[in-house]
Amino acid sequence: MPGFHFTLRHTAPGGARLGELRTPRGIVHTPAFMPVGTNATVKALTFDDVRALGAEIVLANTFHLYLRPGVEVIRRAGGLHRFMGWDGPVLTDSGGFQVFSLAKLRRVSDEGVVFRSPLDGGEHAWTPERVMEIQRGLGSDLIMPLDVCLGYPAADADAAEALRITALWAQRSRAVGGAEEQMLFGIVQGGFSAALRAEAADRMVALGFPGYAVGGLSVGEPRALAYALLEAVTARLPADAPRYLMGVGGPPDLLEAAARGVDMFDCVLPTRVARTGTIFTRTGRVNVRNARYRDDHTPPDPDCRCAVCARYTRAYVRHLFHADEMLGPRLATYHNLAFLAALMGEAREAIAADRFEGWRRGVLDAYATSW
Amino acid sequence: MPGFHFTLRHTAPGGARLGELRTPRGIVHTPAFMPVGTNATVKALTFDDVRALGAEIVLANTFHLYLRPGVEVIRRAGGLHRFMGWDGPVLTDSGGFQVFSLAKLRRVSDEGVVFRSPLDGGEHAWTPERVMEIQRGLGSDLIMPLDVCLGYPAADADAAEALRITALWAQRSRAVGGAEEQMLFGIVQGGFSAALRAEAADRMVALGFPGYAVGGLSVGEPRALAYALLEAVTARLPADAPRYLMGVGGPPDLLEAAARGVDMFDCVLPTRVARTGTIFTRTGRVNVRNARYRDDHTPPDPDCRCAVCARYTRAYVRHLFHADEMLGPRLATYHNLAFLAALMGEAREAIAADRFEGWRRGVLDAYATSW
Repeated sequence: MPGFHFTLRHTAPGGARLGELRTPRGIVHTPAFMPVGTNATVKALTFDDVRALGAEIVLANTFHLYLRPGVEVIRRAGGLHRFMGWDGPVLTDSGGFQVFSLAKLRRVSDEGVVFRSPLDGGEHAWTPERVMEIQRGLGSDLIMPLDVCLGYPAADADAAEALRITALWAQRSRAVGGAEEQMLFGIVQGGFSAALRAEAADRMVALGFPGYAVGGLSVGEPRALAYALLEAVTARLPADAPRYLMGVGGPPDLLEAAARGVDMFDCVLPTRVARTGTIFTRTGRVNVRNARYRDDHTPPDPDCRCAVCARYTRAYVRHLFHADEMLGPRLATYHNLAFLAALMGEAREAIAADRFEGWRRGVLDAYATSW
Repeated sequence: MPGFHFTLRHTAPGGARLGELRTPRGIVHTPAFMPVGTNATVKALTFDDVRALGAEIVLANTFHLYLRPGVEVIRRAGGLHRFMGWDGPVLTDSGGFQVFSLAKLRRVSDEGVVFRSPLDGGEHAWTPERVMEIQRGLGSDLIMPLDVCLGYPAADADAAEALRITALWAQRSRAVGGAEEQMLFGIVQGGFSAALRAEAADRMVALGFPGYAVGGLSVGEPRALAYALLEAVTARLPADAPRYLMGVGGPPDLLEAAARGVDMFDCVLPTRVARTGTIFTRTGRVNVRNARYRDDHTPPDPDCRCAVCARYTRAYVRHLFHADEMLGPRLATYHNLAFLAALMGEAREAIAADRFEGWRRGVLDAYATSW
């Protein structure tokens, strides 16, 4: 794994961490939010936009890209970076979450998982080894092993069995590895029991990965439970490896998780809600479609310095949404991701200055609307 | 009308014209294609994109903006330019074409036209004076008088009556005028008879406008007829005023019309077909959704120097369309408009060098697919 290195720069009194993940394609300053480009595009944006709004790393989706356009097309294009026009680091998930969300999931065994494509009904057999091979074909930088994902609630017996298979697959994934220039994370599952989460963390640490992801949270469980489980996990992870909380992206959740020592996040929420007109502000979410913004000639978020807030008004963005114009989702998406990039930048400054807890409390107090 | 001036720089042997339209918001080099931003947005693009792809002037639609968001919202935003974030010249059409395309058109009289909104069914009464007032509220730079539009075919008697009302309305529009910094064009209608077209041109010239539009063509009539009618009109227009052919935008049509002395064009075609995956190339239209481009890792148009063709491939753009990603229409739209801006730039160079006819024939010969 040459070219990758995680440096923990500072740990704030409460546990929040300031770090740098060096990769062959650039440095990621953590805590970092990673925009999601499911189909090799962050919906409505170019990767020039993504760079301009302040992101240093993006996600793409192994499951979606495997089904369409297919890994061979991307391999022949020269890899995912060249295919989609982004030269920074890319993290691909394993596709486990998507496979286990399918209604037509056929069969899970120790060997792997057989599923039907939601696009054409075709049957596909994935093993942990195959998923590593797919990600080698994509040429992403940070890669994930196949894992078993559960919804909420889940019985402890089911969670224990999922943990057993996930650990087995992690071991096999680690044995085959990615390409030389890929960094393979271990994924900590374990359902909704702190004991199983702790066991999952211990088993992954015993296998030894250069980075650890926490999966299977933010799937409907109470927030307090998610935070408790997260704490149970991060307490057992080595300090010198980056920690990635999968699928979390609401502004308050990011701060709560960063406070518990998480370094990296991804979520479709900021971009998904943007496409319905919801924009993040420091006082909470605003739906710009609302009639009250018809004649509001102020920026979408008056406290934001992004290119969208510098040029456009709520009245204009509202008009775009009501006229069903693509520029509406585009501008809202740009702003929401710029908002999170700026928020993470402030978090890093606060951690560096040992004032993270006070800063976080101030931000959460101002963020008044429901999460 | 201070701040506006049209300079005819050169007329090529066949009749094609090189010109410059100076406006208070910038110079338009002609022949020029004007991208259409119906709802105060060129679909899928920002106006920064529109500027970057080489456009110097854009269109917006009086009818659409009057209905939504309403002229008062735009007036309070500080005018259309500030509302939509474009500081270059804007041309607004009169809305006549849209009103006369409505199924629920209620009544035309010498006074004006009464119609029902397609958005909410509400009744609206437009007079020529009201349409001038609306465009004053929008604050556009080049403005159009209300006119009566016909489809193809149209009986000469209907065309003559439409001409009579259009001339009456043109006179009334001219009497009230736009704001001081607005340039009002006369619109030449006249249906599909060369005699009526000539009469329409003469009547508009007799009223005296600083610019002339040719309306009511490209509505289904044979191309040869359109060109003959266009020639009948441009032959009678003064050389020192700009000529704007409304609703024409296919690459070959632009060259045929420029050859007949037209200076400005607009059309939704280049952006509309882009949204279904059709891109312009020098050898004709290409639909990038086609299976043959699945593994085509060359630029959308190999001869194009636009930002899209510099970075992306047909395989990627095809993938975006198949995955229903907004970036597909966005990239195709950008390219098609950049293609036309570059084509018009070449046309201007060819006119300046007195080699327009040869250049035009070469381009048309290479453009093999159906128009």
